[in-house]
Amino acid sequence: MKYFTTVNDVHSVKDLVEDALHFKKDPSCFSNFGKNKTLGLIFLNPSLRTRLSTQKAAMNLGMNVMVMNLDKEGWALEFEDGAIMNGNKAEHIKDAAAVIGQYCDIVGIRCFPGLLSRQEDYSEKVLINFMKHCSIPVVSLESATLHPLQSLADLMTIQETWNKPSKPKVVLSWAPHVKALPQAVANSFSEWMVKSNVDFTITHPAGYELNEEYTKGATITTNQQKGLEGADYVYVKNWSSYMDYGQINCRDEAWMLTKEKLRATNQAKIMHCLPVRRNIEISDQLLDGPDSLTLLQASNRVYAAQAVLKKLIDYRIPEGGNVRVTMGKEKNLS
Amino acid sequence: MKYFTTVNDVHSVKDLVEDALHFKKDPSCFSNFGKNKTLGLIFLNPSLRTRLSTQKAAMNLGMNVMVMNLDKEGWALEFEDGAIMNGNKAEHIKDAAAVIGQYCDIVGIRCFPGLLSRQEDYSEKVLINFMKHCSIPVVSLESATLHPLQSLADLMTIQETWNKPSKPKVVLSWAPHVKALPQAVANSFSEWMVKSNVDFTITHPAGYELNEEYTKGATITTNQQKGLEGADYVYVKNWSSYMDYGQINCRDEAWMLTKEKLRATNQAKIMHCLPVRRNIEISDQLLDGPDSLTLLQASNRVYAAQAVLKKLIDYRIPEGGNVRVTMGKEKNLS
Amino acid sequence: MKYFTTVNDVHSVKDLVEDALHFKKDPSCFSNFGKNKTLGLIFLNPSLRTRLSTQKAAMNLGMNVMVMNLDKEGWALEFEDGAIMNGNKAEHIKDAAAVIGQYCDIVGIRCFPGLLSRQEDYSEKVLINFMKHCSIPVVSLESATLHPLQSLADLMTIQETWNKPSKPKVVLSWAPHVKALPQAVANSFSEWMVKSNVDFTITHPAGYELNEEYTKGATITTNQQKGLEGADYVYVKNWSSYMDYGQINCRDEAWMLTKEKLRATNQAKIMHCLPVRRNIEISDQLLDGPDSLTLLQASNRVYAAQAVLKKLIDYRIPEGGNVRVTMGKEKNLS
Repeated sequence: MKYFTTVNDVHSVKDLVEDALHFKKDPSCFSNFGKNKTLGLIFLNPSLRTRLSTQKAAMNLGMNVMVMNLDKEGWALEFEDGAIMNGNKAEHIKDAAAVIGQYCDIVGIRCFPGLLSRQEDYSEKVLINFMKHCSIPVVSLESATLHPLQSLADLMTIQETWNKPSKPKVVLSWAPHVKALPQAVANSFSEWMVKSNVDFTITHPAGYELNEEYTKGATITTNQQKGLEGADYVYVKNWSSYMDYGQINCRDEAWMLTKEKLRATNQAKIMHCLPVRRNIEISDQLLDGPDSLTLLQASNRVYAAQAVLKKLIDYRIPEGGNVRVTMGKEKNLS
Repeated sequence: MKYFTTVNDVHSVKDLVEDALHFKKDPSCFSNFGKNKTLGLIFLNPSLRTRLSTQKAAMNLGMNVMVMNLDKEGWALEFEDGAIMNGNKAEHIKDAAAVIGQYCDIVGIRCFPGLLSRQEDYSEKVLINFMKHCSIPVVSLESATLHPLQSLADLMTIQETWNKPSKPKVVLSWAPHVKALPQAVANSFSEWMVKSNVDFTITHPAGYELNEEYTKGATITTNQQKGLEGADYVYVKNWSSYMDYGQINCRDEAWMLTKEKLRATNQAKIMHCLPVRRNIEISDQLLDGPDSLTLLQASNRVYAAQAVLKKLIDYRIPEGGNVRVTMGKEKNLS
Repeated sequence: MKYFTTVNDVHSVKDLVEDALHFKKDPSCFSNFGKNKTLGLIFLNPSLRTRLSTQKAAMNLGMNVMVMNLDKEGWALEFEDGAIMNGNKAEHIKDAAAVIGQYCDIVGIRCFPGLLSRQEDYSEKVLINFMKHCSIPVVSLESATLHPLQSLADLMTIQETWNKPSKPKVVLSWAPHVKALPQAVANSFSEWMVKSNVDFTITHPAGYELNEEYTKGATITTNQQKGLEGADYVYVKNWSSYMDYGQINCRDEAWMLTKEKLRATNQAKIMHCLPVRRNIEISDQLLDGPDSLTLLQASNRVYAAQAVLKKLIDYRIPEGGNVRVTMGKEKNLS
């Protein structure tokens, strides 16, 4: 695997989840595997979980880590190809990416969308520039449209807490929020769920339909109560409109997940990627109750990242080497 | 010891100082003790000495370190229990603390007071939230009311420079400053001194009385010259008023420590935790003179932190293990 | 070598370049040499290449690294000797430097010029304060007037790409820019070139003469086309006026390097330290073409830093030790 930016980069989702669960049991099992390898973690936006869990994962593998807030500690970046750089942007992303590729063996990059232009955000300019220009394996630390490290940890969390022979019903339930948020976590959770052995439903207000590329195969309903019926897992998340791009079209507080709403479920477990707006997206009662999996999800981020980094390190082994190279489906960057 | 937030967390101050002095002689003596352990250093405020010395201490013990400026690199934090989070705060401190606890073996946290509400600051909301929610050992990197790593280094500095059989006279002398500063260093130095084998005096202008919880046992005088008489050590520090909370009630430049003032002392050594306002708190002549211990204090911060981290790592050894667990008096968090 | 702040600190430029090229072939050849040594990297300004490449170099040598954005993560610094510190500056540079020296074995410092006062900038107050007060080896990560780590990597790049018996003609060609930039890279490149086995020419508009201290021995012309004739290497760089200090006196776009301009050269290679203003300093066509060495220069920064750090570590070996101490010419700090 050279890139980890979407579920489509993964050869076998099942195997990757198993790797992650194995790392959870024995975090030190490959503690020298990354020796003398350097992971660069590049942030263009805030990060708590991703920042710390990915560092921890790399250290568990014996890697060196360099963390950089590129926007604050480096130079203001130009993203346009062919730009005449006479403004405030001091460095072109393609130069920055190429240079970073010289200093690292794997690079992780976080870049949120601007939520002003759907076309621009969904073109994934920053991530694609890194993949094009930095020559080394790239792991998304949440891009404009997807957050695969989160989704892998989410799937892992569902798998380790599910002990019945039947498929669990998993519901992604839109929640209110005071700010316009990216669709990335929702897109990503959806594209992973439809590839997994679960019965997957999405419920959101009208106008909050996600890009079908990610939701194909999911049951979609604008009736939250109906969506929640019989749910085993409820994943709560806000996102701004994809169709009326970046807008907040619904402020209906009734979409907050509360204990009452769970009556229709199968004693559902509650999931959220965090940070969560308490008593706006989900009530304190649920978040602090026994059915919340949010801390487990956060904890699993380490092992998800560890499994991914392990595969990206594998890619660096020269082809003549005696370690099997596990190839993911690589992005066509033409 | 699970927490290091006050002198009351320490089982034996004498033993801890001896540990620190031992680390100073042989910084590498436990260089594998922290192997595969991770220290998270979380800053909500600026830090130079604490940031670097605690990192260095952890590396001396073989630990991994992750440093994070939580306020700038993470999400704006909500501190109120039960808050309806519809404002600018993206994440609740209890979620952030719980998550950080999943990624680290020990966490250090720095959080200054707001100096607007005495009740709020002295409730130590941030620190307590970390102790309550992050499940792992917690070390204060200076909280709203105390700075124990500094005080341990200060005590260590006094001990290693004192070679007489009698007790030294130690004076904490208030100094002017242009800004309203926390009482933390003064509170902390006082609570450590009254538990140590020294003759301890505090001198400050009227209206600058500290919380008696920390000063019980000290001699207190508003007559600086009288306080300094026969002093062996003069610890200079500004703090804002505790009674008229957070206010600057005295701007009298005569409280600055100068060479002339030292005539009444026993050739006293000068101490300050740094950063120091030169020629406002203490004259250049004294700071750059042979009796200044400020650099020694700063240097000792490494070994003080090393002794504390060693004890906090001890705590993580399972009870059935063959390493003796040194238990401190733990905070009652009920 | 105790300091690396100018080419004059280097005993043998030739040997240092050879060391760097050796590290490039075998980055791990001294992977335990820096064990238990700590490099502090202190930034007062943005940095991408220097930040990451110097970290990487230190890790290749087995060193621990602590990175600090002193201006943002520490305290606002006072630089004036004898200042009465009653303003916004919380800590004096001499205290900060002295303290950092207690926690590190080598310190790197980046401090750009203010471009308001030539006298102040060329006094190198920050760097000199570090050399004076922090007691340990100091490496410049780009100071107000020089950038020696860049120049060493540049020279290394020329040497490894030059395979003729004759000297190459190297041209430093001024370029337009929208901002007033320091003279540091130009000064530094010049002082290294005039000490190297190359035929060195500088071309710039009238009024952009550099300080002669650095350019003595170079051919200087205000006729760009004439300067470029027969060039083997063209190093493109903007700087603001030294004589009319910090001003932009020329905005002539014709000074941009383009493919057409290279006709007069000997199929010259293009160099730039990055970040580069594309289509202002150099055209995209050249930067993305086969003759651009910019990425190679950036890549070589690791090995240049590694060679320098190796020499600075050497200095720490006690005099009675069995490792030869390579002494550079040390700055006279009187």
